[in-house]
Amino acid sequence: MKVIIVGGVAGGASCAARLRRLDEKAEILMVERGPYVSYANCGLPYHVGGVIEKESSLLVATEETFRTQFAVDVRTNCEVVGISAAKKTVGLKDHKTGKVSAESYDTLVLSPGAAPIRPPLPGIDLPGIFSVRTVPDAREMRAWLERNDLPGMDSYTGFQTVTKAKRAVVVGGGFIGLEMVENLVHRGLEVTLIEKLDQVMPPLDREMARLVERCLEKHGVRLELDDGVAGFTQSADGELEVLTSAGKTHPADIVILAIGVRPETELAKMAGIEIGERGGIRVDEQMRTSNPDIFAVGDAVEVRDFVTGQWTLIPLAGPANRQGRIAADVIAGRDSRFRGTQGTSICKIFEAAIASTGVSEKLLIKLGDKDYEKIYLYPNSHAGYYPGARMLAIKVIFRKSDGRLLGAQVLGEDGVPKRIDSFAMAIQMGCTMYDLEEAELCYAPPFGSAKDPVNFAGMVAADILHGDMPIRHWDSAGKGFLLDVRNPQELAVESVPGALNIPLPELRARLGELPRDREILVICRSGQRAYYATRVLLQKGFKARNISGGMLSRSMFAAK
Amino acid sequence: MKVIIVGGVAGGASCAARLRRLDEKAEILMVERGPYVSYANCGLPYHVGGVIEKESSLLVATEETFRTQFAVDVRTNCEVVGISAAKKTVGLKDHKTGKVSAESYDTLVLSPGAAPIRPPLPGIDLPGIFSVRTVPDAREMRAWLERNDLPGMDSYTGFQTVTKAKRAVVVGGGFIGLEMVENLVHRGLEVTLIEKLDQVMPPLDREMARLVERCLEKHGVRLELDDGVAGFTQSADGELEVLTSAGKTHPADIVILAIGVRPETELAKMAGIEIGERGGIRVDEQMRTSNPDIFAVGDAVEVRDFVTGQWTLIPLAGPANRQGRIAADVIAGRDSRFRGTQGTSICKIFEAAIASTGVSEKLLIKLGDKDYEKIYLYPNSHAGYYPGARMLAIKVIFRKSDGRLLGAQVLGEDGVPKRIDSFAMAIQMGCTMYDLEEAELCYAPPFGSAKDPVNFAGMVAADILHGDMPIRHWDSAGKGFLLDVRNPQELAVESVPGALNIPLPELRARLGELPRDREILVICRSGQRAYYATRVLLQKGFKARNISGGMLSRSMFAAK
Repeated sequence: MKVIIVGGVAGGASCAARLRRLDEKAEILMVERGPYVSYANCGLPYHVGGVIEKESSLLVATEETFRTQFAVDVRTNCEVVGISAAKKTVGLKDHKTGKVSAESYDTLVLSPGAAPIRPPLPGIDLPGIFSVRTVPDAREMRAWLERNDLPGMDSYTGFQTVTKAKRAVVVGGGFIGLEMVENLVHRGLEVTLIEKLDQVMPPLDREMARLVERCLEKHGVRLELDDGVAGFTQSADGELEVLTSAGKTHPADIVILAIGVRPETELAKMAGIEIGERGGIRVDEQMRTSNPDIFAVGDAVEVRDFVTGQWTLIPLAGPANRQGRIAADVIAGRDSRFRGTQGTSICKIFEAAIASTGVSEKLLIKLGDKDYEKIYLYPNSHAGYYPGARMLAIKVIFRKSDGRLLGAQVLGEDGVPKRIDSFAMAIQMGCTMYDLEEAELCYAPPFGSAKDPVNFAGMVAADILHGDMPIRHWDSAGKGFLLDVRNPQELAVESVPGALNIPLPELRARLGELPRDREILVICRSGQRAYYATRVLLQKGFKARNISGGMLSRSMFAAK
Repeated sequence: MKVIIVGGVAGGASCAARLRRLDEKAEILMVERGPYVSYANCGLPYHVGGVIEKESSLLVATEETFRTQFAVDVRTNCEVVGISAAKKTVGLKDHKTGKVSAESYDTLVLSPGAAPIRPPLPGIDLPGIFSVRTVPDAREMRAWLERNDLPGMDSYTGFQTVTKAKRAVVVGGGFIGLEMVENLVHRGLEVTLIEKLDQVMPPLDREMARLVERCLEKHGVRLELDDGVAGFTQSADGELEVLTSAGKTHPADIVILAIGVRPETELAKMAGIEIGERGGIRVDEQMRTSNPDIFAVGDAVEVRDFVTGQWTLIPLAGPANRQGRIAADVIAGRDSRFRGTQGTSICKIFEAAIASTGVSEKLLIKLGDKDYEKIYLYPNSHAGYYPGARMLAIKVIFRKSDGRLLGAQVLGEDGVPKRIDSFAMAIQMGCTMYDLEEAELCYAPPFGSAKDPVNFAGMVAADILHGDMPIRHWDSAGKGFLLDVRNPQELAVESVPGALNIPLPELRARLGELPRDREILVICRSGQRAYYATRVLLQKGFKARNISGGMLSRSMFAAK
């Protein structure tokens, strides 16, 4: 059996290594267009930023490793230039020699990845405009950032040694864009982030993205949301400028394009295999394409969203690695299946981490799905009395009809991975919010709380599902009567116009001040005291609802 | 309805607050023997150590909070001195006035906790010997540590200002003992830890405890395992000494007893309710005792081990809080049930954290359960190429027959909570190791790996369950032929006597050197290359087994 694997990074490399372990006899040829196999593409922004100083750190496994440990024939700088699915051959071009040769296969695995989008804008090919995909990309960016002959730079200071790149424009506020922003700030650059949408981090809901944006602004990043790039020019003195749809001009010593990626499907089209509705290669659960002798894995394929069942594109390393293993299993005659993806992801934003898993509210809205509720909570990352506790901001989305957990978004400076992974594991296993109530997670004062934030989410949701705590959100507060149960000192800092203030301890004695014919919307700092108040009011015959997340949610829903 | 809750910390306080939320009309009386309700007992060691400086930080909710926010009648310094289950009354003694009064109840909730064990040893009541349970305990320890008149202290230095406690003996190496050890070292004391068992941290298996012990020794802690305390004396010059069963004498300026806790069952016995086989109050899933009008929650009750179904005592804050809520639910007429406990716990040991969830191997051995396998793995806490990655040591136990995850133990300096909570959530939902293989956990270089350690555990176990990778452990290596596939440089650091060295890259060419009639036990650093080698050997017709965890496991199994 001869297997040719096209692409030697995440999915392809995993497939090659796994296939060898399962089949010592298979002839395995792995071809990679670039100079390196199995490199850490997720580390590229940090290499540009100097956090990962040595380029060699990014080379996880070398060609040599694949040859000697796995007996895999590896050809780098080698590109597939043609596929004949009928003859089961590929045409390979060796970029070092320029020669093209033909190789036959019994099974072909496509792992070409996804290419950074470079829209055909005026000036897109000017020097100083980069995308982040390969080790050579990072090397070129580093060289560009360190060069001393940038135009117009001398005016900054009189010192020759610092006449380096000072101003960066990052286009696109997704994961890679934000990682590049952080790393360029880390290098000392002034960074402007331009994003076409009205929020950064598309997997997040907008109000959660607001918190990320605040964090960016705190670190001096200029945010230009709701504005797209119209083109690039070079000014008279050679300076690069980014022009936007809104007519703005941003001078830049370097521009990073991180608009998104597009599945590489040229080879698939050459082979005549089916492309899906989202533009990725269509595969079945066993990673088999429409041609039974051709498999495809990684960022180039469409996968099923585990929660919604919809086709989706999720260019993430974890799923790519799993898909590579599954393809190898199937090729070796085993019955492995990919269960789909739930889009679990995390991104470091300076001192904070933002993570999400499962579906967002905006996806549910897009799908017309109304059988959901959402909650906001702001617990401490660990026991508040132990030093270093930080507030987490958590949004959880669950089914109204059966309590099933659908999605979670968590932001904070401590304890984010612990919580998002609990939510992720819970979504995988079809947990309800009641299961989260009962979760027994690790607790000691430095690491958590006796009621972990994940339990807390379960408890809040269970109160809603049981009808014990009707809620409202700031964006649908409507014409309710606003009751603020915080203490007067808290109101002095920020109050809600038109709200009646009755501090919680006085509530039972002052019920006479409240209307019996209107919906009473109860507010406190985070929603906890408002919950206590809501319980009192409901039992006393009032129509009360808690505003989820209280004052802490309010600013997230405020207009940008 | 009148409900009396005995005990105002974790379980009792949760019960009172929850019950009020569910029933605005109930008459709720919460009595607490000590001066404070709802204090952070988990924070006491850190207050003694000065990490949590202010005592007031430990007071989570005050009597006042319970009165004003929850309309709960609270009496502190008030002890139940009698119960008549027939008359449904309790006798209450007010320690401030000395008066005893009777109160009737419709429902009684017992949350008395568990008392530190103080064995009747000679000298146990000498001054300077403390247990860690209450805020006043911590206050007394701090005062003792800070006093300047310790006997025999002047000889240390000539300075009056530093004539304070210098040497501490901690008796008992469980959670509280270890937290006290760390905090006393943090205060600058020389600490000796005496533990009767041959390991610290009883919930861990011994070989994993070895890693904790190394961490303690690295920080200068003197470990005296396999030795119990026989008594205490005061020397001629007034110095405190700890005498051990092995005949040793340890001078000490302070002694902390952390031998364990015993459920407080005096009240339960007074009420004539059933005590379980483990010595705790017996309750059903709804936290109801053998008397239907009396509930019990927290450290005083026996609960079911979620994994084994056995009765157990688990004095942990998380379950206590949940039990309090469940009792309140049931009293308010709801059908809540406690699903049992899986013993999830974590403990900070200097820069490291040690955590476990589910069952240990030694518990399975005790139960005579042989349907399990175990694996050891040593992955990085996050991508190795990103700064700050630390090695995790992970032991996972799973069912041989169906692959179900039974237990996990994780130690490391980074990323422990993330992993133990994933395992905990997985155990709760009855996950198999195959589910862990497919878990989609958060990954970005600062936080994890594309194949998270949890996935990695799933993959290793699946390889074993599928028969792809037979394994052995160092303690059952027997008479196999030892094959070491590491590089010669690694052997120079530490080699295994009698093992043949064939570096992995040379293996396929040197198969002739290996016996076909003996079991070949393959060794590498962590088990990964040995896995690759095992796959080659098995496919070539050899009888090969991987030694789980390789050299990194070896020292854990070595005799202490």
